[in-house]
Amino acid sequence: MTRAAPRAKRAESTDPSAPSTPTRGLSRRGLLGLAGASVAGIGLGVAGDRVALAAAAMPGAASASAVYPFYGSHQAGIVTPAQDRLHFAVFDVSVGTTRAELIELLQDWTIAAAALTAGHDIGEYGAVSGPYDAPPEDTGEAQGLPTAGLTITFGFGFGPTLFETADGVDRFGIAGRRPAELAALPHFPGDDLDVGRSDGDVCIQACSNDPQVAVHAIRNLSRIAFGRAALRWSQLGFGRTSSTSTSQSTPRNLFGFKDGTANIKAEEPNVVTDQVWVSADDEPAWLAGGSYLVARRIRMTIETWDRSILREQEAVFGRTKGAGAPLSGGTEFTEPDFTLAGREDQPLIGAAAHVRLAHPTQNKGTKLLRRGYNFVDGNDDLGRLEAGLFFISFQRSPAQFTSVQLNLAKHDALNEYIRHVGSALFAVPAGARENSFVGAPLFA
Amino acid sequence: MTRAAPRAKRAESTDPSAPSTPTRGLSRRGLLGLAGASVAGIGLGVAGDRVALAAAAMPGAASASAVYPFYGSHQAGIVTPAQDRLHFAVFDVSVGTTRAELIELLQDWTIAAAALTAGHDIGEYGAVSGPYDAPPEDTGEAQGLPTAGLTITFGFGFGPTLFETADGVDRFGIAGRRPAELAALPHFPGDDLDVGRSDGDVCIQACSNDPQVAVHAIRNLSRIAFGRAALRWSQLGFGRTSSTSTSQSTPRNLFGFKDGTANIKAEEPNVVTDQVWVSADDEPAWLAGGSYLVARRIRMTIETWDRSILREQEAVFGRTKGAGAPLSGGTEFTEPDFTLAGREDQPLIGAAAHVRLAHPTQNKGTKLLRRGYNFVDGNDDLGRLEAGLFFISFQRSPAQFTSVQLNLAKHDALNEYIRHVGSALFAVPAGARENSFVGAPLFA
Repeated sequence: MTRAAPRAKRAESTDPSAPSTPTRGLSRRGLLGLAGASVAGIGLGVAGDRVALAAAAMPGAASASAVYPFYGSHQAGIVTPAQDRLHFAVFDVSVGTTRAELIELLQDWTIAAAALTAGHDIGEYGAVSGPYDAPPEDTGEAQGLPTAGLTITFGFGFGPTLFETADGVDRFGIAGRRPAELAALPHFPGDDLDVGRSDGDVCIQACSNDPQVAVHAIRNLSRIAFGRAALRWSQLGFGRTSSTSTSQSTPRNLFGFKDGTANIKAEEPNVVTDQVWVSADDEPAWLAGGSYLVARRIRMTIETWDRSILREQEAVFGRTKGAGAPLSGGTEFTEPDFTLAGREDQPLIGAAAHVRLAHPTQNKGTKLLRRGYNFVDGNDDLGRLEAGLFFISFQRSPAQFTSVQLNLAKHDALNEYIRHVGSALFAVPAGARENSFVGAPLFA
Repeated sequence: MTRAAPRAKRAESTDPSAPSTPTRGLSRRGLLGLAGASVAGIGLGVAGDRVALAAAAMPGAASASAVYPFYGSHQAGIVTPAQDRLHFAVFDVSVGTTRAELIELLQDWTIAAAALTAGHDIGEYGAVSGPYDAPPEDTGEAQGLPTAGLTITFGFGFGPTLFETADGVDRFGIAGRRPAELAALPHFPGDDLDVGRSDGDVCIQACSNDPQVAVHAIRNLSRIAFGRAALRWSQLGFGRTSSTSTSQSTPRNLFGFKDGTANIKAEEPNVVTDQVWVSADDEPAWLAGGSYLVARRIRMTIETWDRSILREQEAVFGRTKGAGAPLSGGTEFTEPDFTLAGREDQPLIGAAAHVRLAHPTQNKGTKLLRRGYNFVDGNDDLGRLEAGLFFISFQRSPAQFTSVQLNLAKHDALNEYIRHVGSALFAVPAGARENSFVGAPLFA
């Protein structure tokens, strides 16, 4: 990697010699890939960094001015207070990419992600300040936008080709390092998966309070990957469906219910340690400090749901639609009482209620850190909104998701109104250290 | 239509007898359609209105607390400062729907739109407060969200069936009232239109600073239409690409350029009167105070664009990428000088530059009020982002768009990087008066 000189953030200084946050340019290979040979030899200019607007703070996590560092012991975008918007992208490493080129791609992605999350353009010159005879290093649509709490989170998938191809080729010399748990999720009852929206080699989750900032990140990371990895599938989400911090109010899913009330919160460090982060005692060692990401595209048949009566809707969730209180009584954050019976000795929260089947007490204490988003992708040929929940969860082991989902897939009353149409699992490495790159321990 | 009793906004009062903004419920037909016969006779409850959060104001139009009235001489969502997010939906009136049922649908939509834009749930009971043996009248996912500047704008399409079917049937007795100009747009050079993303009977444009508020509006309006009209196509947009007020900064399109610098602004009332609103002297009389809406789905081949050099990009637009200044000099709002020549006597703004070809001086003074949005709808099979501009313009006559677009389609240097893949034209009636409904003059 070539080191670039320190760059000035435009909002702070227009003097290129002023001291500022040091960031680094793309690797030589990345620069060549983007801009052609003419750029690599050109001297330093003033970087076209984005203005970090001091926008008025909005309540909770919806702050335009929030900045989350890319480097750290864990990756950001997991226990970070869930931002409002998502662009999730999955890449396959291209045929012919070598181990060295894959590492270089991860290095380039790391440098770019660190710049983007800090509110900088990527590259040494950025979007708008030349050189004029090369393509701009940054595509420019985030010029003038605030950082908007951008996080960029990387994960490694079990397939189709990263650790080992279907016919057993170890392309990158890491077949022996695949975590035993990084394998195809079991087929759950009712699964109706589209391979075009499932699996893949590497995922990038970009979350931000401004959708254009998230889209800009994925677009530029895709561009950096050109020739080395290609987009396999992607998903935009417009509304977060979970809180990951007690500072956040509980949002609503497209069934109109509060979602994620009992989610793991960043303010529960013991639970996070126990349930989210892969420990140094777990296998494999290279994944210590990381996590596993499960993504499920869940299509909601909202037209059918919308015709069900309120009593049924509340029975399905086991909570009231307004306050989100358990049907056993109390308010949103009251613990549900699954034993409390109402008329004819029937439990107030039914046997098939979602809140019961998903609850840790019914799953041997298992919790997931959920971080999903509502989506609407137009409509289908019958005029129904192509809408649902893009479920994302982080957990120390995929077995946590599998055990809960087996319980739900078999019994959940909600199954009448949903269909799982996409699925993927990724091993999310620990955070990158400065002067290193995300996923470095996998290649060490 | 049945009148509902005045309702209390929850944020203002929890006492159902407290005086508040009177709104009205759905028509009896609408209520029956939604909830079944059991609801219509039930007495009044406390409506489940949405909380109008007093969120901290953000800069410009991005205010969570903005409220734009639905009733008025013109429809909102045209000269209203462009909100950040879009959900655009086009419906076809169902086979078998009578004239009376179509009018009733427009009445129901009017009542619902007035409630939604005021931050209320739709219906008399709303989303969460029962009756428990009926489906909730409102789907509920906007509970707790602010009004977020929601506007809902209706338009009538020339087809396939509204004014007259292809085989000449006058379903609703309005064939004689079709504006002569409400007809298929000409085929422009390079058009590559998908019929599944073009045309339709009725359009609804929902704009808001919160995408979930816009999605909630379209979803509930679709639901109200059940059995009377069905969704034909729809489009979400995540980032506005035009300013319609001098109070707004100029946003950027996905080519990274500022867009809409020279757009018509609400603060130019003479221009708005001359170029946007259909006058009482224009034909037909029922459209006075209205406008025409052109929608074009423009796919950008951003991967190709991203490989073009900065000099080429600026030459294509005729503006600098950073400040958005014309290449003839000055700053963003400096008038371009199309005669100013540079080296070898070539004009600094080339003959094929977008800013030249689109400029009013090159189009006999014609202006459009643009109100488009950036979109990303996943990616295609080749791993390219399915991204572009959902262009929307309002104008007094479709001929304004046609003349400018013919000029662009023939000569614009930008054509190398874009493809028009969807197209539609709608006659947008004047604003609804209270106690009437949107489009009433068409049926008077």
